[in-house]
Amino acid sequence: MISIAVIGCGRIGRMHAANVARHPGARLTAVYDVVEASSKSVAEETGARAAASLEEVLDAGDVDALLVASLTETHADLIERGAKAGKAVLCEKPIDLDIKRVDRCAEAIQGLDVPIQIGFNRRFDPGHSAVRAAAAAGEIGDLHQVIITSRDPGMPSRDYIAHAGGLLRDMTIHDFDMARFMLMEEPVEVFAVAEALIDPELGRELDDVDTAMIVLRTESGKMCCINNSRTSVYGYDQRVELMGTHGMLISDNRRPHELRRSSGEGADVGVPYLNFFVERYAEAFMNELSAFVDAVEGRAPVAVGFEDGRKALILAEAAYRSLASGRAVNLSELAEG
Amino acid sequence: MISIAVIGCGRIGRMHAANVARHPGARLTAVYDVVEASSKSVAEETGARAAASLEEVLDAGDVDALLVASLTETHADLIERGAKAGKAVLCEKPIDLDIKRVDRCAEAIQGLDVPIQIGFNRRFDPGHSAVRAAAAAGEIGDLHQVIITSRDPGMPSRDYIAHAGGLLRDMTIHDFDMARFMLMEEPVEVFAVAEALIDPELGRELDDVDTAMIVLRTESGKMCCINNSRTSVYGYDQRVELMGTHGMLISDNRRPHELRRSSGEGADVGVPYLNFFVERYAEAFMNELSAFVDAVEGRAPVAVGFEDGRKALILAEAAYRSLASGRAVNLSELAEG
Amino acid sequence: MISIAVIGCGRIGRMHAANVARHPGARLTAVYDVVEASSKSVAEETGARAAASLEEVLDAGDVDALLVASLTETHADLIERGAKAGKAVLCEKPIDLDIKRVDRCAEAIQGLDVPIQIGFNRRFDPGHSAVRAAAAAGEIGDLHQVIITSRDPGMPSRDYIAHAGGLLRDMTIHDFDMARFMLMEEPVEVFAVAEALIDPELGRELDDVDTAMIVLRTESGKMCCINNSRTSVYGYDQRVELMGTHGMLISDNRRPHELRRSSGEGADVGVPYLNFFVERYAEAFMNELSAFVDAVEGRAPVAVGFEDGRKALILAEAAYRSLASGRAVNLSELAEG
Amino acid sequence: MISIAVIGCGRIGRMHAANVARHPGARLTAVYDVVEASSKSVAEETGARAAASLEEVLDAGDVDALLVASLTETHADLIERGAKAGKAVLCEKPIDLDIKRVDRCAEAIQGLDVPIQIGFNRRFDPGHSAVRAAAAAGEIGDLHQVIITSRDPGMPSRDYIAHAGGLLRDMTIHDFDMARFMLMEEPVEVFAVAEALIDPELGRELDDVDTAMIVLRTESGKMCCINNSRTSVYGYDQRVELMGTHGMLISDNRRPHELRRSSGEGADVGVPYLNFFVERYAEAFMNELSAFVDAVEGRAPVAVGFEDGRKALILAEAAYRSLASGRAVNLSELAEG
Repeated sequence: MISIAVIGCGRIGRMHAANVARHPGARLTAVYDVVEASSKSVAEETGARAAASLEEVLDAGDVDALLVASLTETHADLIERGAKAGKAVLCEKPIDLDIKRVDRCAEAIQGLDVPIQIGFNRRFDPGHSAVRAAAAAGEIGDLHQVIITSRDPGMPSRDYIAHAGGLLRDMTIHDFDMARFMLMEEPVEVFAVAEALIDPELGRELDDVDTAMIVLRTESGKMCCINNSRTSVYGYDQRVELMGTHGMLISDNRRPHELRRSSGEGADVGVPYLNFFVERYAEAFMNELSAFVDAVEGRAPVAVGFEDGRKALILAEAAYRSLASGRAVNLSELAEG
Repeated sequence: MISIAVIGCGRIGRMHAANVARHPGARLTAVYDVVEASSKSVAEETGARAAASLEEVLDAGDVDALLVASLTETHADLIERGAKAGKAVLCEKPIDLDIKRVDRCAEAIQGLDVPIQIGFNRRFDPGHSAVRAAAAAGEIGDLHQVIITSRDPGMPSRDYIAHAGGLLRDMTIHDFDMARFMLMEEPVEVFAVAEALIDPELGRELDDVDTAMIVLRTESGKMCCINNSRTSVYGYDQRVELMGTHGMLISDNRRPHELRRSSGEGADVGVPYLNFFVERYAEAFMNELSAFVDAVEGRAPVAVGFEDGRKALILAEAAYRSLASGRAVNLSELAEG
Repeated sequence: MISIAVIGCGRIGRMHAANVARHPGARLTAVYDVVEASSKSVAEETGARAAASLEEVLDAGDVDALLVASLTETHADLIERGAKAGKAVLCEKPIDLDIKRVDRCAEAIQGLDVPIQIGFNRRFDPGHSAVRAAAAAGEIGDLHQVIITSRDPGMPSRDYIAHAGGLLRDMTIHDFDMARFMLMEEPVEVFAVAEALIDPELGRELDDVDTAMIVLRTESGKMCCINNSRTSVYGYDQRVELMGTHGMLISDNRRPHELRRSSGEGADVGVPYLNFFVERYAEAFMNELSAFVDAVEGRAPVAVGFEDGRKALILAEAAYRSLASGRAVNLSELAEG
Repeated sequence: MISIAVIGCGRIGRMHAANVARHPGARLTAVYDVVEASSKSVAEETGARAAASLEEVLDAGDVDALLVASLTETHADLIERGAKAGKAVLCEKPIDLDIKRVDRCAEAIQGLDVPIQIGFNRRFDPGHSAVRAAAAAGEIGDLHQVIITSRDPGMPSRDYIAHAGGLLRDMTIHDFDMARFMLMEEPVEVFAVAEALIDPELGRELDDVDTAMIVLRTESGKMCCINNSRTSVYGYDQRVELMGTHGMLISDNRRPHELRRSSGEGADVGVPYLNFFVERYAEAFMNELSAFVDAVEGRAPVAVGFEDGRKALILAEAAYRSLASGRAVNLSELAEG
């Protein structure tokens, strides 16, 4: 049983706090948010105490670990401060939007022997993880192609987008991690096309994109294509396909139940997909937490480490360079600056 | 927030206790089993106290309601004693194997103003309940046919079967309730064929059957066919189909996730269905508990009442008469004795 | 290469004529209909000659076989006359609406060594026949249950119904044959419920029904349920399910292609099922013809014989007796008159 | 009714000859192959005459059109000679492996007013064409992404590959055409990765590849990804997905029938996909022929013209340049040589 404090009590923090509160291996001792009303409200819902300050949390003797769900710009700082205070940290993605800040963070925590886990929750989805396990067990022989389809149900607010660091760092970051997870080999080359097709204003005003296709290649020639869209009117579209010498594995979309309607309009029509990440990845978030508890308890190594967070961001960097140049970008180019 | 004591700490009692313990609207205060070790073990897992006797539970000031999951032969007695002690009761099916005992129980509790709910959990399955809701909302126009397929993954032990009261009272009882729930009109006639096809010894030794088809007819001519089998090697098979003037509704089987495999052996092969009722109806059991909490709190009427438990048993009685006579049995014949 | 004459140039005769014309093992030499315009029109479409009379066809030296697609009341007569003229006969179902006429026909053709095949086309459907082949090969172990769902897309005209001989002889006759085909053992007992639910006027005016559930039982205890409806707004619904000790086999509905639509209205929505028998059983009708050609050429025994046509009708008779009596009717009762 | 001669009597020519023979709007008058035994055998099967020479076919008064199914290196020549002889031509893809030869052919036939159709049969597949029709009708709003999955069931012979012109000209050429068909706007940029992953020897000996991912971009920013593999152990994998502002359209794989097996090994397992192009695209080849007949009869414009064949080849050229350079290649670069 470990004691966890949740930092950040917005939408995702609230979900994490509820998960910690009902997890059999964890106790939610404290919650903190710069907005006092938010921490108080989550504290009330969960029975945890609302900490008055971050320092209070970091000094607390009954806090073994931090679950960081605050704004992106605070992540690296909280990882450093938590780790120095001897707290394990489960930090939402991304570590930071700036790879240099991530690198400084890596240096700062070097040698500190605390578990740091990055919140790539999708690795823990029952379907995605079963695909990976089957591929890792050799079920499809040599892996050749990975196709990741990842489309959000609806465009976030203009304000959110303005601070999100761009589609590839904000949304595709999950798919870059999924690509590394499924390829089981580091990508060495990235090619990207991306456009503001859904909302051309977005492109003009914020220099951002909403639709993308990205191809990754590994040293041994494995290929991965990521298909992204900010808007999918038919629901949250989350699919992973692996193709190899002995077969194919697909983790398909999920529905809340298997009602099928037949009428003059159509036959065997299923209900809509699970709506968005809170619903679609509900089990994944709980499994992610279990993996973190296991790592903190020393029962298992950290499942998704700081370096995984860093490497996903590097792939985003490479993709932006590819967008700018129209070339496939080799990751070695980034190392050179 | 209501306080619940779970009576009976076997397989199903243990599951119910865990559900109560994590339900946001309920508190598990006590558990009791005639086998002390069982209550102690469940008490330890859930943090509830292990009551030393049934009397202790019935007298307890911090017990608003009983969740009865003990042996069938104790159900009617516990409903009576609980109700007389002013406790609400959520009782596992069936109320009793003997319709006369059920009738005496009905008399005993008459006029006692406590919620009594019978554990027909399948009504609360998201898929089945969505089918019923759509039909009740008129989506398929006039309902004409209901087809219920209900096959258990494997034959229970000979010992279990010897005390279960026969296939139709033990297993089909759920389907009789499902038929009433979906038909939205009382069946007036029952015809049954049943055989010991899986295990002919069963027929000879215990005079029981393992495979059945039962047709129900309502006053207005709606028809329902129930297909039962004690063994389904491909997994727990739980489907409901409704056909009406404007369409068809199906609640289909569920899988734990949507991994699909393609190999030289086959393409698009899904993972096995959820194994048995604990997995398949996990949400249903929680929803059933929520409905009970709502009824006890006075927020909603009892969703599945004592009379529902009684009527399902009467359908089983009629089906046994049909088996014996080779005729469709009208329920009015049973009323006459 | 055999020479075939098609008798009856209505909707089904026209389809058969076109099939014969393009079958690699058959030649369409003549067509005949009492309505001269019909035979002329089909003759023109197919290049065959329009015979002026039935006698002309029966006397023709270039006619090896008759394909009888005329009105039901002419079937038995044409089988007798064809067989006596030494012509093989492929006759649409049913042989006659009156079992006594069928029996007289059986006597009349006794000893005549010509292939007589009855048009139970569904046996030749690729899906249905694959199910039967797998079951016959022991793939699902001992067969226990068969479920046949058979629903026509829309109610035929009042005039058609008035002459069709009742739902069970006109429509269910196909399902009775399918039941025998799939059970691989003769049913000994029949129980039926049937109602005029779609069109209650139908019941009052023509004493017919439009919705039915029929349970068949074989000597060894195998069970079959047939679900019928004259109207299925979501399309022609033709499914067969076999359940046995080692598994289940389903022959499901078919679509013309695998377009799936996803929109705000729903995800993964398929196109409507193939509309009605001409489309759904197009391959089946061609395969039926191939089987007939093989039988006439002596390469294979007759696949669906006169006795199969007779037995399906006997099951319909038994079902009508069951309807009238509310009892399961044993086929031995019919033998007794 | 038009008269067609089939040139080339190998595997595909034989299929085309059979299609012409049974097409209601066409007559197969002659067949020709440089190997006399081949033309004789096809002639015998179809009742057409085996022409002794190409000249005989070109001079024949009873030949309105050529269906060219001979070796790739003869295509351009036959198009030229056929067109000059006033014959309409339906020519299998590709026009030639060398874009310069294609350009010379274009010049040679300029001004000759005969229908020239290129054999991109997939455009006529019922599922693919329904997807395209729905998208063209605006059903999914603005089109953003196209994903084409195209995997052959097994590696062709080393000898075939040696003369096929490389994966992208031989196999992907179909997908380049499908991309243009679905995008409904010309691609302006091509990026490709490709490897010899299935058979690395192939790469070393023949400098060819067997696995590829290709990204196309149009002027307005629409994106398309093509996924290719020479070997798919689970069967011929032919899928097309279109994503737009109002929804998604998928043309999925097809099976010969809808038998689904459930056993201890798995539940609801479908039969294998239709094996390869002859089976999968059987309807497509017939529809392609109908479109050609319509064009020759003047009832419709040519559905897939010479220019379509040329443009697909240009995309293959661009893809090879991209492979060599690691850059996205703009089609304008090719124009410049």
